[in-house]
Amino acid sequence: MNILYDERVDGALPAVDKPALLQALQAQLPDLDILHAEEDLKPYECDGLSAYRCTPMLVVLPHTLAQVQGVLKLCFERKVPVVARGAGTGLSGGALPLAKGVLLVMARFNKILAIDPAARTARVQPGVRNLAISQAAAPFGLYYAPDPSSQIACSIGGNVAENAGGVHCLKYGLTVHNLLKVEILTVEGECLTLGADSLDAPGFDLLALFTGSEGMLGIITEVTVKLLPKPQVAKVLLAAFDSVAKAGRAVGDIIAAGIIPGGLEMMDNLAIRAAEDFIHAGYPVAAEAILLCELDGVEADVHDDCDRVRTLLEQAGATEVRQARDEVERVKFWAGRKNAFPAVGRISADYYCMDGTIPRRELPHVLQCIAALAHKYDLRVANVFHVGDGNMHPLILFDANQPGELERAEAFGGEILELCVSVGGSITGEHGVGREKINQMCAQFSSDELTLFHAVKAAFDPHGLLNPGKNIPTLHRCAEFGALHVHAGQLPFPDLERF
Amino acid sequence: MNILYDERVDGALPAVDKPALLQALQAQLPDLDILHAEEDLKPYECDGLSAYRCTPMLVVLPHTLAQVQGVLKLCFERKVPVVARGAGTGLSGGALPLAKGVLLVMARFNKILAIDPAARTARVQPGVRNLAISQAAAPFGLYYAPDPSSQIACSIGGNVAENAGGVHCLKYGLTVHNLLKVEILTVEGECLTLGADSLDAPGFDLLALFTGSEGMLGIITEVTVKLLPKPQVAKVLLAAFDSVAKAGRAVGDIIAAGIIPGGLEMMDNLAIRAAEDFIHAGYPVAAEAILLCELDGVEADVHDDCDRVRTLLEQAGATEVRQARDEVERVKFWAGRKNAFPAVGRISADYYCMDGTIPRRELPHVLQCIAALAHKYDLRVANVFHVGDGNMHPLILFDANQPGELERAEAFGGEILELCVSVGGSITGEHGVGREKINQMCAQFSSDELTLFHAVKAAFDPHGLLNPGKNIPTLHRCAEFGALHVHAGQLPFPDLERF
Repeated sequence: MNILYDERVDGALPAVDKPALLQALQAQLPDLDILHAEEDLKPYECDGLSAYRCTPMLVVLPHTLAQVQGVLKLCFERKVPVVARGAGTGLSGGALPLAKGVLLVMARFNKILAIDPAARTARVQPGVRNLAISQAAAPFGLYYAPDPSSQIACSIGGNVAENAGGVHCLKYGLTVHNLLKVEILTVEGECLTLGADSLDAPGFDLLALFTGSEGMLGIITEVTVKLLPKPQVAKVLLAAFDSVAKAGRAVGDIIAAGIIPGGLEMMDNLAIRAAEDFIHAGYPVAAEAILLCELDGVEADVHDDCDRVRTLLEQAGATEVRQARDEVERVKFWAGRKNAFPAVGRISADYYCMDGTIPRRELPHVLQCIAALAHKYDLRVANVFHVGDGNMHPLILFDANQPGELERAEAFGGEILELCVSVGGSITGEHGVGREKINQMCAQFSSDELTLFHAVKAAFDPHGLLNPGKNIPTLHRCAEFGALHVHAGQLPFPDLERF
Repeated sequence: MNILYDERVDGALPAVDKPALLQALQAQLPDLDILHAEEDLKPYECDGLSAYRCTPMLVVLPHTLAQVQGVLKLCFERKVPVVARGAGTGLSGGALPLAKGVLLVMARFNKILAIDPAARTARVQPGVRNLAISQAAAPFGLYYAPDPSSQIACSIGGNVAENAGGVHCLKYGLTVHNLLKVEILTVEGECLTLGADSLDAPGFDLLALFTGSEGMLGIITEVTVKLLPKPQVAKVLLAAFDSVAKAGRAVGDIIAAGIIPGGLEMMDNLAIRAAEDFIHAGYPVAAEAILLCELDGVEADVHDDCDRVRTLLEQAGATEVRQARDEVERVKFWAGRKNAFPAVGRISADYYCMDGTIPRRELPHVLQCIAALAHKYDLRVANVFHVGDGNMHPLILFDANQPGELERAEAFGGEILELCVSVGGSITGEHGVGREKINQMCAQFSSDELTLFHAVKAAFDPHGLLNPGKNIPTLHRCAEFGALHVHAGQLPFPDLERF
């Protein structure tokens, strides 16, 4: 399989004396697990975005704060870049290693330090898995709301670094909305606390700034999250439509009625058929689009809302509306959606999962543009949406063994993201920018805005040692990438202007 | 009346050639309203924290973006400090002018630019009053949730600058949770957009960083807020207790039960009596504490929650629990609370309103400490709380015409804030730091943390021209103020350690 790797970042970094660094680490931190042989480094060459790979110079696996501090201080002295990694499930290459950098794996920080049911908080180490927090909170009737699809594997530190979302973030918010406090180490190895246990921390809101900063501002060593009481009941409605435009209209009507579903998802025909073939969820395979709408809360409330949503769906032209009869059918309805990605994996050698957000009203227009792009690049696309909050996940189907298909898929994905920006949306919903979308950041932001990002980065990390080459592009890179900035409202898609 | 004014900030600023600056402003911006005569400047010498006053060098009242840009560019060239002001209702002196600075009054930016009922957003200019947004949204069944007590007068720009809260922020969040996007001008007069119309903006979260930054990072020129559907019903319970400890326990029980009230407020005996004398709300004047608990949402849900809360209140030892019979009584219950400040104003020549947050469990301990401090300073104190989120507003009663009382009140207030920090809370809940709490920031943060704040400030404003002397203290000031840092858990209150 081809590898998409950008030589420029590593190329621009100064040479590192690996044997000397290794020796210094071993001497100063004798208990630290360090991987340095080629075969040991191989498993760490990519994260969940496996099309991008790079073997790290060294991998360190600390299990104490002092070890992380020691690594950071040594790297800072020698000006060696450090890339942090949690569970490695990220989909935008945020934890892609550097050939001239140390990969700092935080997976062994996996302890739940405290659950406080009265304050409804959990204090955990960054390597704790997302789902493990909810499991630990379950005996108290509590759970941690953000639920990325990878929640069984992904770590809370990575969730904070990428500001992860999930099916339920329309109602319950992204990671940033469910955090109280993080403890971090600066690039120099100093301990800092961002946020507080109380409502409003004075000074600048560095907690929110840090959340989603993709390992560029510091290393997370502890996280305090908010817990929520489990809803009494959850019901799911499935609605079929003969056009995506009608489904899109129904979404707008539900939101405008003041109903906030726990989850509101859309799938298009190709995604429906793939999921049905795989899971047998009972989806209507002839439908052009389906909506899944989950309502949760107290019994009476959910009952009323189900009735209102059904009426709205029917008024918007649904050809069929079904409420899951029981918990078994509810779980089955969701299983189809949650397995849409692997289901698509069954009908294509490879797929490339995109992640962008758009204003909900732009949905029909954007889907038409994506169909036109699919024609232009001669690749199929299946559309799966967190449609309630306008977060799209088009899956581009390709075969990496066919020469040029990977590159076409990448270019296609890039155009989808730029399309999102051009309609007033953004190039990421919940997967982050990482290495994947760094060029599209040039479309999203003006040079003044990028300059400000760099100034903020420098306030934390003046030498640019933390995860260089991710998240915030250099102005030089943007200039190379071309004048894609569309803030002035000018569409960079001449061949799509007919829509 | 005495004035508490800190000469050090103005003293440290370089001299400004006022006539030359005035001439340049008049020449370059002929349509700009500029106040420069002593008598015209007087009304602007303070904000809502009137104990601190300073006559600004010049006041400008722009009504176009180009004028604001022109003022900023000119001041930037000449390195003249700029202090932004909205409605001037702030309670921490965030808009206190500088004798060597320009006061930039944004009150004329008072247009509601768009209400989008489908997207549930409002796009407004920064001088629009908080309540005016809800009034404009009312025809669509929507409102803007954060409701500071000053909402009839305070401006949304000021709300963003201070990250304002209100009675309902326990359930609906602070300003930062209800914002989508702000347009700002940098210190150099460049336009920037922070945030986006879509769910998650890539790059660093500068919108959250900017919110609550008290005019130190840029000038707000436009704000897009989220609107919420009005709850179907709202019910209020009033519970009386013979001790604040029992009332505090009831609060913990309600929250632990997973109920999130729309508002949850506590008043102590002095506050109850003052409010009852003024408003005749029907409060039990013999009670040591009352709780007001509002539940809002859909009918059935609210009905169930009222029953559950009543049971919890009774179990916690309430001597009486009353539910407002109708809307008239509900409004009366709230009127007593909302007028608690002016009510206290009737029983004391002056009062000083504090604002700190504490973990809820520390409530009885903190109230005991405040009582001891009241004894030490020989001043009365009435306690009014947004108790659901641990946000206290102790009102210190004093008479500014009695020599030394203002200074005693200020010192008392400072000790209350440091007490909040020592129990794991913070020196502000919703009023901001401003000039008022700048010394207490030294207690809240370590020198590493303050250094990072300054670095972030410098990323936006390298010459420190925007609102200098507020929010983030210099390390020099902290050193002067004394070694008050209590992060290490060491209590700086030897005379209170008996509690």
